This record gives sequence, C-alpha cells and structure tokens, in this order.
Amino acid sequence: METELTKTNSLAEELRAAVDRNFDDQVAFLARLVQFRSLRGQEAPLQAWMAERLAERGYKVDAFSLADVDLMSHPKAAPMDGIDLAGSRQVVATYDGDGKGRSLIMQGHIDVVPEGPVDFWDIPPFDGVVRDGWLHGRGAQDMKAGVSAMIYALDAIRAAGYAPQGRIHLQTVTEEESTGNGALSTLMRGYRADACLIPEPIGHKLLRAQVGAIWFRVRVRGTPAHVAYSETGTSAILSAMHVIRAFQDYTKRLNEQAVDHPWFKTVKSPIKFNVGIIKGGDWASSTAAWCEFDCRLGLLPGTSPQEAMRGIEKCLADAQSTDSFLSSNPAELIWSGFQADPSVLEPGSEAEQVLASVHQVVFNEPMQLQIGTAVTDTRYYKVDYGIPALCYGHYGIGPHAFNERVDLESVRKITLSIALFVSNWCGLKKL
Amino acid sequence: METELTKTNSLAEELRAAVDRNFDDQVAFLARLVQFRSLRGQEAPLQAWMAERLAERGYKVDAFSLADVDLMSHPKAAPMDGIDLAGSRQVVATYDGDGKGRSLIMQGHIDVVPEGPVDFWDIPPFDGVVRDGWLHGRGAQDMKAGVSAMIYALDAIRAAGYAPQGRIHLQTVTEEESTGNGALSTLMRGYRADACLIPEPIGHKLLRAQVGAIWFRVRVRGTPAHVAYSETGTSAILSAMHVIRAFQDYTKRLNEQAVDHPWFKTVKSPIKFNVGIIKGGDWASSTAAWCEFDCRLGLLPGTSPQEAMRGIEKCLADAQSTDSFLSSNPAELIWSGFQADPSVLEPGSEAEQVLASVHQVVFNEPMQLQIGTAVTDTRYYKVDYGIPALCYGHYGIGPHAFNERVDLESVRKITLSIALFVSNWCGLKKL
Repeated sequence: METELTKTNSLAEELRAAVDRNFDDQVAFLARLVQFRSLRGQEAPLQAWMAERLAERGYKVDAFSLADVDLMSHPKAAPMDGIDLAGSRQVVATYDGDGKGRSLIMQGHIDVVPEGPVDFWDIPPFDGVVRDGWLHGRGAQDMKAGVSAMIYALDAIRAAGYAPQGRIHLQTVTEEESTGNGALSTLMRGYRADACLIPEPIGHKLLRAQVGAIWFRVRVRGTPAHVAYSETGTSAILSAMHVIRAFQDYTKRLNEQAVDHPWFKTVKSPIKFNVGIIKGGDWASSTAAWCEFDCRLGLLPGTSPQEAMRGIEKCLADAQSTDSFLSSNPAELIWSGFQADPSVLEPGSEAEQVLASVHQVVFNEPMQLQIGTAVTDTRYYKVDYGIPALCYGHYGIGPHAFNERVDLESVRKITLSIALFVSNWCGLKKL
Repeated sequence: METELTKTNSLAEELRAAVDRNFDDQVAFLARLVQFRSLRGQEAPLQAWMAERLAERGYKVDAFSLADVDLMSHPKAAPMDGIDLAGSRQVVATYDGDGKGRSLIMQGHIDVVPEGPVDFWDIPPFDGVVRDGWLHGRGAQDMKAGVSAMIYALDAIRAAGYAPQGRIHLQTVTEEESTGNGALSTLMRGYRADACLIPEPIGHKLLRAQVGAIWFRVRVRGTPAHVAYSETGTSAILSAMHVIRAFQDYTKRLNEQAVDHPWFKTVKSPIKFNVGIIKGGDWASSTAAWCEFDCRLGLLPGTSPQEAMRGIEKCLADAQSTDSFLSSNPAELIWSGFQADPSVLEPGSEAEQVLASVHQVVFNEPMQLQIGTAVTDTRYYKVDYGIPALCYGHYGIGPHAFNERVDLESVRKITLSIALFVSNWCGLKKL
C-alpha cells in the first residue's frame, strides 16, 4: 500500500539522488557567489550574473532596482543613508507552474557585511575556498549557501523528472543587512504567494520569533583645544564614551524588563546593543572636535520600532542632561538604517506543518524551533502582508565574523529539505 | 647724557616707526601664510614660497629636506609614522653680519594641525581673513604670526637704516606639531648660534619650563560576531574604551605625584593625556573587529621620554591583565610621533636678560614667565646643543581649536620686541 509517507520517502530518495548529482555544480555555484564582493552598494555585478543564471534555467526574470518602486512612500521603508537606490538591484525569477498548487516565494539576500581586516582571516574572504567539507568566505554562511540551496532545490526537482504545480518566485535581494528595503521592494513590486521560505543559516531549525532592530548614528561634537589647555576644550571622543556607556546601561534595564517576555524569556539578555563603528578626531594632540558612532539596538515583539526609537531618544537626552558640555551642545541623532519590526511566526500554519514533516524525513528527527536575536526579512511577509514566512536553513560558523564558513553536508541536506518542501507545498507533476 | 636706556628708547622709536610702516605688508604676508594649507606632509608649497621671499630679501637660503640629513641616526629623532622624509622641507635663510656681534637663530614652524570639520568655523580656516583687528585661520596664531614677526623684525631694522652685526639664521621648519624632527634637522645640518628665539604664541611671556610629550597609537582587535550573538564576540571598540579609561586613571596618578614638582607645582594637573583620534569597526550590526586610537601623554622635567614610554607600556599591560579578552589578545602599541624631552630654560642667561629689558621697553611692564603644558622646539637647543632658547611671542586665541585667530596689535608689538632684541643681542651698525 502506497501511503503519503512512503510516497514522500520514495520521492525523497529520487530528489536526494538528484541533489547529490548536482552537488558539485552547486558548490561551484556557491563558491562563485562568494567570489562576488557584494558589500552594501556593490551588489549589482552579482545580481546581473544571478539574473543570467536564473534566465538560463527558463524562469521569467524581473531585474529591477529600489528606484523602480516608490520605496520611500512605504511606511516601513528605512532610511538608505546615502546608498544609491538605482544601484541596489533586485532579481525575481518566476516559475509559473500550472496554477494547481500553492504558490511560494523563496528569497535570499546576497548582500554581505564587510570582511574587516583581511589579515585576520585564515583564508582570504572572497576566494570561495573549500577545505575539509567547509566552504569559506564572507557570505558563505550568511546567506549565499541558502541562495544556492533554494535554486538547486528546484534544479533537483526538475532533474528528478518533476515540475512543481504552484507558482514560485525565486528572489535574490539586497539590503537585508542594513534596512530590509530589498525584500520590501519585491512586495511593493507586487510579488505575493501563499507562503514564503527564507533559507537563512539557522542550523536546521525553524525561526519562531525574532527581534526587531534600530540602527542609529550619534554625532557628538567637542570644543577642540590644544591638549596643553585640554581643560578649556571638551573631547568629543570622551563624550562619545559617556553616551555609549549610557546605552549599555539602558540595554541592561531593557533586558531586566524582558525576563518575562512570552517568546524571549528563555533567552539571556535577548536585547543586544552594539556600537559597530566609531570615528573621531583629527590629531593626537588636539582634543577631538567630533566623534560619531553607529549603533544597533534590538527590540522584542510587543514593542514597535517607533517606541524603540523614542526610547533611544530618551536615553540619549538623559545621558546628555547629566553632562555639563552635552547638555548645552546636544549630539545629533541620525536614523541610519534598520527600523525593523520584531515578529513571530504564529504556530499552526500549514506551511510550518509541511516543513516539519519534510524535515523529519531528511534529518530523521523533529524540527526544532529557534528564538532569534537577529533580524531577518521574514518580518515584512508576516507583519505587513499576512504571508506565513518560514526562516529555515543550513548550519555554518561565524556570521559577520572572521573565517565565516558553511558546512557543505548541511547545505546538501537543506537543499533536499527545500526540494521536498516545494514538492509538498506546491505539488508536483511528472514531466 | 646719552645712556643705554635712552639709546634703546630712541632706537625703539625708530624701529617702531619702521614696523608700523611695514605692518600692512606684514599682515598681507601673514594672511598669505595662512592661505597655505600646510598640514603635516603638505608643507612643501609654503616652504618653496617662503624660500623665495627670504631669498629676495638678500639672505642665503638653504632649502633642504629631512632626507638630506641622516635623521634617523640621531638618538632624539622621533618616528615619522609614514610621512615622506623627502617631502618634509626646511628653509634656513642666513644673514652673515660682520661677525662682530652675537649670533642668533630665529625659528618658527609652518606646519599646522588639521582644521577639523570646516562647518564648525565662523570664518573659513584657510582664507586668512582680518576682522576687527584679528587675523583668523588655522595656524594664524600657532605660529605663522610668529614667523611673520621674526621676518618683519629684520625688515624693520633694515628699513630703519641699520644692519645687525652678528650672524642670523632665520628658519622655517616642519614637524613641530608631531615629532620635532624639522628643528632637529636644522641642528644636524650644522646650524648653531649663541642663542635661539622661537616666537610661539605664549602671550608676551617667556617660557620657563615645558613638558615633554609622547605620542602613541594603540591597536586593539576584537573577535567579531553578529550582534545577535554578541556574547560570543568581543568588541574592539569596548576594549578601546577600557584601555582609554586606564590611561585616564594613570594620568590622574601621575598628576598626584607631580604636586611637589619644582617647576610645575603651580600648575593644576600639568600632565595631560589626550586621545585625539579614534577609528574602529566596519558595520553597525557586527561587534567591532578592530579599533585604534592615537594618544598624547605629557611628561615633566625629571622624567625622560624613555621612562615615560616604559610607564605607558606598563599602564597598557596592567589594563590588559584585568580584561579576560585583552589578556590573551594583547593590543599593539605603536610609537607614532613625539618622544619629546621636557625642558627648562635655566634662569640667568644673558639672552633672557636682554629679552627682559627690551620687553620692558615695548610693553612698559616686566616680562612674565610661563610654565608650559605644551611642547615646543626649544628643547633641542637647550637639552641637546646647549644653546639658550627663548620661547616668547604674541597673543592669540584657539590654538588647535576652531576659530583660531591672532591679535594683530600683539603681533605688531612682538615684531618690535624681536627687532629690539636682535639689535641688542646681535649688535647694530648704521647702514
């Protein structure tokens, strides 16, 4: 008797074989992706290459830029901090299917964060080297491996002699690491589906809840003076240190209030504050005339980005009020990127059930849940467009760090998981 | 009966008239000097122009660079931190006299410190604008006004119909704000005299004692991580803040030990620590992988630069030993400029007596003394070459600050003071 399970198991074996046959190609594809140094504002060459790769697979390709939608009219658009809208290109490849199955968006970001000083890497960050089963490089894990998985999952279905029935939009976007405007633009462009899957590197788990995040820049000025008379000047660097300490204290208080949070109570200090960039001063023997620093502060479900921003303003104002110089020379506060909603994947969706069942087949264990202290693009689909959005992907080491790398066996399994998910969600027909 | 005093008073009137006649020219000359943006490493155009101005006055001009002496063989040479030796040009203009008077070096530096953000200035920093009796701009006070004074003092003597008898070297140098290697190179080039006068802006006083200074750069690294997992990373920016606080505490202890210092006991906290430049991190949502900051720490007479450097090393080592990350990932310490001796102008020199007497004539009050918390080039002449070196000059506002400016009436008086000093020190003959 052929049951659903044996059907799935038999299909799984066919798809597994197809994923395996293509896997050397997939690794080469992923290495090529890593070799594009697709830092923010520099993603266009990769996206042009990607559009060609997707077009040659027979998909309808829509390549557009953030300037092609009325981005800033959207209430959830985040400030671009000087990045050229027209240079930030998005790619949506559409497979139409026969319209009989459920539709699906699969989306991955191809922007990567800066690699930092290259001499800190054991293997050059943009060489795309494979060693001992790991593919190394900036973006290998976060999340070019996921991009390869969603593309090669569809390749495997076709290679196994099947075609999905529902419509599928394969999307590669920018801005995930800074604003989310890339993902937002695809929704503004009109792409919708019955579910969304974003294969971020979360180690074979499903993301149940995620924080939001606010980016802000604080510009402090000083009254410069020759160091010989430093008591007549005020150092903007020391003022910056004062403000940074205030934000550290504020974050501690926020985390104290979060110990009972319905989703995040199991996470120690889920609200992270980070000062990621600092610059100030021009001369060792002059008190610094200026200092600016870029920060990121998380927020939990139940708090809106607007409330978080009011909190940041108040923390800064309070810090300034206790400082004789800053109280009369207030810092400039600039919203420099993320104004990201926190979000929860509400339990019980059919999409989640389908994913859980295919995960069991591939990994031979139940799918675990993750409570995430990072932002992902899933928030727009869930919060703003009512589309169940699954964040589920491979395992790797070192996102945003030196020696970032991805476990290729994990990528292989996740590719199969996605292929099975597509098969079950969108439906399959024999070619 | 013609006394020394009436002779001086009569000469003073002749020189005063000559300074006054040339003063519009002098102000235009000073404005032109300010218009050269002679930041470190960018002084050559000004020095080329200066060599022409001095040559057209009939002086023998020796224009050379730091590469033309064996600078780094000198035990007092300070590290140049990547600045090109051949591009750092010095100008020495020699007036020979008749050899019957005492010789004199007059020296001024033409390097200026960075102007900082231009929008913080009321008047653009390199326009050389005169307003309400003040000449505005970066370097106007520190110390291009002094350079104008020493040149126009000699012009006034000639215009009044006199010629000095002793040999005079008029020198314009670089590197005063960073290493002192410009002044040192003139001594290595062989220029000597019976006294030296450096017209730095110290408000009509004579500098009795000055601090030394050490420049150093601290490079801290971090273990970057996605801010979502910031507990697995260590922020180089936060480590830098830890080290900066340690240097603030160290400076406090040094100042507590200095309350009985023979020269500096009258100065509150004479040892100044400054962190003048900071840079770190690449991305708001990554814990910073690197941070470096440039510092200046003073030292008092009785402490050698080498002792101060050992103290800096120990302060850094102690700060690192109390930090779990830094103790196993020590910062890099770079000596980035000044390794300047502190120095004292020993009371009782004839040069000082001559200056005091002409100051009384010009200002109609006794010359006051200054204990200085900044470094000047006088240290080499006094400490290393046994030449009494007088630091004495005009009044202005805002050295190293925004809206730096010099009081032109002060410049006029100091020009006369210098002319009278040259007359009395070197001797005069009628032309």
